[in-house]
Amino acid sequence: MTFRAARRIAEAPVVAYFCKRGTTGQARRIADAHIGPGQIEEALEYPVTNEIAHQEESYRSRIEAFFDQCAERLAAHLEAGRSVCVLNEGDPYFYGSFMHVHLRLRERFRSEVVPGVISPIAAAAQLPAPLVMRDDTLSVVPGTLPEAELEAALAPAQAAVIMKLGKQLPKIRRVLERLGLTARAWYIERASFDEERVRPLAEALEETPGEAPYFSLIVIHGEGVRR
Amino acid sequence: MTFRAARRIAEAPVVAYFCKRGTTGQARRIADAHIGPGQIEEALEYPVTNEIAHQEESYRSRIEAFFDQCAERLAAHLEAGRSVCVLNEGDPYFYGSFMHVHLRLRERFRSEVVPGVISPIAAAAQLPAPLVMRDDTLSVVPGTLPEAELEAALAPAQAAVIMKLGKQLPKIRRVLERLGLTARAWYIERASFDEERVRPLAEALEETPGEAPYFSLIVIHGEGVRR
Repeated sequence: MTFRAARRIAEAPVVAYFCKRGTTGQARRIADAHIGPGQIEEALEYPVTNEIAHQEESYRSRIEAFFDQCAERLAAHLEAGRSVCVLNEGDPYFYGSFMHVHLRLRERFRSEVVPGVISPIAAAAQLPAPLVMRDDTLSVVPGTLPEAELEAALAPAQAAVIMKLGKQLPKIRRVLERLGLTARAWYIERASFDEERVRPLAEALEETPGEAPYFSLIVIHGEGVRR
Repeated sequence: MTFRAARRIAEAPVVAYFCKRGTTGQARRIADAHIGPGQIEEALEYPVTNEIAHQEESYRSRIEAFFDQCAERLAAHLEAGRSVCVLNEGDPYFYGSFMHVHLRLRERFRSEVVPGVISPIAAAAQLPAPLVMRDDTLSVVPGTLPEAELEAALAPAQAAVIMKLGKQLPKIRRVLERLGLTARAWYIERASFDEERVRPLAEALEETPGEAPYFSLIVIHGEGVRR
């Protein structure tokens, strides 16, 4: 966590965070040392997470209604003059859950985005070689893309990070094999936490060929000059 | 700066940093509050920065000799049992100057990379819309690439960040215009500092069409669903 983020958390009258039903959530745990008893907390509990496939219409409609409700809960504080700090793992503008309330409220209220350490960078820090240097390019690609789009997005990349693995792993594996990238690929679970695991992708695939945790990552570092 | 970085800086017997000749350098200034009088400092002064074109052979040979010397200065401390903390703006594995000593010393000494907030993320935090969300892809591209490669790298991207602008601006402008990306592009100078400037690229180009500071950035946010 950055000093700027810690200051914003500590000084906000209201601290809000997304979490899975019945849990406190990772973001709230990370911020714990900076939240005091005088602060109001708003736990925004997802009504569903992995119980319904994300493509299904019932998932989308339930989740959109949930974000609408979240925005209204936060708006009530803002209307009353209480600033709200919305916790976000990684960075709010980088696939962050904050965006769902931000996009609903940005025309009514002023906001500040505090940049953070994104998971591709946290994961790459564990590798024996730099992610990108000199004229390397980097592509960040969600594993949820259709197979052809995934391949098109990865083909021109020197360095690449694939996010949101989950059940997409067999498809991602086929694409990386066609592009000849498997040997350079690393598989990282729980980047920057104590339980972090870093392995060559080929090794990880032998163990869990079908599915990976949603928040695991594949990192392929650039192959530019590496003297 | 992150708490982890501050701890590593404060506890290291030796703190090293790259800087332009005759200056303290940005990284050292940012770290100032965490460095005490009992710590040894190693200022690694670049022999040249922008005085010679980077493509020239004399630049490359001087700069490689300089990195060799830097590595030996740090190795002397490490051999004597003194840990060295090398400061790095942004993230060490993301186009960081740390890599030049890291690659020279990694087989002789153990190292830890502390991940940081990269400039594309710091810059994007200033925009009115998220950099990437849902199934957006992101391409990070150095402006120093040849024109055709730059275009190939940017063509499939939904969101993009162009680094290392400098004298490359006219070429980058042509590529963005051909790809129809100019209207969505933002121009950011000195991201996350007090003197930060954020403007639509078209506006910035009217003012300074020929050259931009080396550490300025162009950010194009994804155009996925933005309700």
